[in-house]
Amino acid sequence: MKKAKLTFLGTGTSSGIPMIACDCPVCRSADPRDKRLRASVLVEYGGLTILVDAGPDFREQMLRQDVHHLDAILLTHNHKDHTGGLDDIRALNLAERHPVNIWCEPYVEATLRREYGYAFAEQKYPGAPEWRVHVIDGTAPFTVHSNANEEVLEWERGFGYHHLPPQPAPDISVEIVPIRGWHHREKIIPVLGYRFGNIAYLTDIKMLDSDAELEKLRGVEYVTLGCVKIAEHHSHPSLQECLDFFEKVGARESYITHLSHQLPFHEEFAAMLPPHVHPAWDGLVLE
Amino acid sequence: MKKAKLTFLGTGTSSGIPMIACDCPVCRSADPRDKRLRASVLVEYGGLTILVDAGPDFREQMLRQDVHHLDAILLTHNHKDHTGGLDDIRALNLAERHPVNIWCEPYVEATLRREYGYAFAEQKYPGAPEWRVHVIDGTAPFTVHSNANEEVLEWERGFGYHHLPPQPAPDISVEIVPIRGWHHREKIIPVLGYRFGNIAYLTDIKMLDSDAELEKLRGVEYVTLGCVKIAEHHSHPSLQECLDFFEKVGARESYITHLSHQLPFHEEFAAMLPPHVHPAWDGLVLE
Repeated sequence: MKKAKLTFLGTGTSSGIPMIACDCPVCRSADPRDKRLRASVLVEYGGLTILVDAGPDFREQMLRQDVHHLDAILLTHNHKDHTGGLDDIRALNLAERHPVNIWCEPYVEATLRREYGYAFAEQKYPGAPEWRVHVIDGTAPFTVHSNANEEVLEWERGFGYHHLPPQPAPDISVEIVPIRGWHHREKIIPVLGYRFGNIAYLTDIKMLDSDAELEKLRGVEYVTLGCVKIAEHHSHPSLQECLDFFEKVGARESYITHLSHQLPFHEEFAAMLPPHVHPAWDGLVLE
Repeated sequence: MKKAKLTFLGTGTSSGIPMIACDCPVCRSADPRDKRLRASVLVEYGGLTILVDAGPDFREQMLRQDVHHLDAILLTHNHKDHTGGLDDIRALNLAERHPVNIWCEPYVEATLRREYGYAFAEQKYPGAPEWRVHVIDGTAPFTVHSNANEEVLEWERGFGYHHLPPQPAPDISVEIVPIRGWHHREKIIPVLGYRFGNIAYLTDIKMLDSDAELEKLRGVEYVTLGCVKIAEHHSHPSLQECLDFFEKVGARESYITHLSHQLPFHEEFAAMLPPHVHPAWDGLVLE
């Protein structure tokens, strides 16, 4: 089984922690592990650098890790806290001289076309984001390749990018397994989790589509799931639903992400969880 | 003439400084004044708290100033670096129990409807942003009122907000003067600057619409303009165009904002400017 390295860039719910205008003890905590940007992870896998989700903190997250190169962005679903920072890939276009490859479901692409219309326009505003969207249906493993295989962008001042043919580059690619889940018990909003060999990253999944998805997680060493509060929630699992999921998967270590200020302080929360289940924090590395 | 207090929350161009994946000396500067979030200002004026623009750094900017209350957001134009953070007003909705009032031009509202469709939906996802858009045409002064005069939001778990009638509140309002400019010499993208009594905030304006707009700036004590580089630029004024504008306005002190890493270090840039013209920085207060 191929090994991945995963860095949590953000482990907060849609509002992050602290939340604007909130004076609760968790939002006012001095523990750096209680400061949570919006949920996102950076995965190094099979020679590729892959980001999962690019929420509003994308720029800050790239700066903190001093990222100079991204082969691919995988999107879990179309909510703003997972897609709101995509405009800032412009800086990577300039540095890498390649479009950024994005993998997502058709309905997520439709949202990008609406919310980033200027990046899909025929006649682009000079400097608008350059990306290539690869659509997946989430039923079968898919292959992600290096962005070095993509066309070359040449900047012309006052005009924008010219698109030149790809230059010969080593053909590096990896296979990723999508996991079908739903953001809501009524199966309204589809979400994808992703398995990278020994690590599976899932968030914003209230329930898996079926037990067949659970089979796809067999044998992982690390698994994550999003949880915003201990009690029942309409679109995220309760803590008990998380623990049940972790037990079914049976990973060596399990991590909770997408935390809100409704959960206890990081340290208190860690202490109340079973062995091998942990709250993640911004900057935590699994490898 | 009424006095305003203006705090620069961000003084950077669309990519901010540092820019992702950039190793230039300005992006690697240790001077905190060389760290620039996306352009935005907080204005206290006539008893109201008014934000101009809400780019992708909106959450971070609200947290840095510990903002608990906003009466209004004025938008200068529809580019992502000025509107990309609006989803995060959700936290203010929860804290203030009022919608956030947004003032902008009709074409900017159209962009919001496209890029934040879920906030305009008939049947909203629970917790989606609650705002009220007030459309202005930019030709005449307009009145901004306290958000305390707006309907009351009552949260119901699992459902979302109920909208209740406004509760009696003191009627505080102020008049703001819009200044018509263009983002491009060919007058393609309209932009509004705003005058708050003794202070006028303008950015992303390559040229004013006409000399009539200049008249609206007569007598200001402080004025700003955006500049991304010293040389000619297709959509922002060159440094010389900025200096010419500042001379025509004749304010006591003039500030350059929306800076990019193509300009020198803050300290070097400040030293090369005429007296009474200064680069702004994140956190600078004018009053």
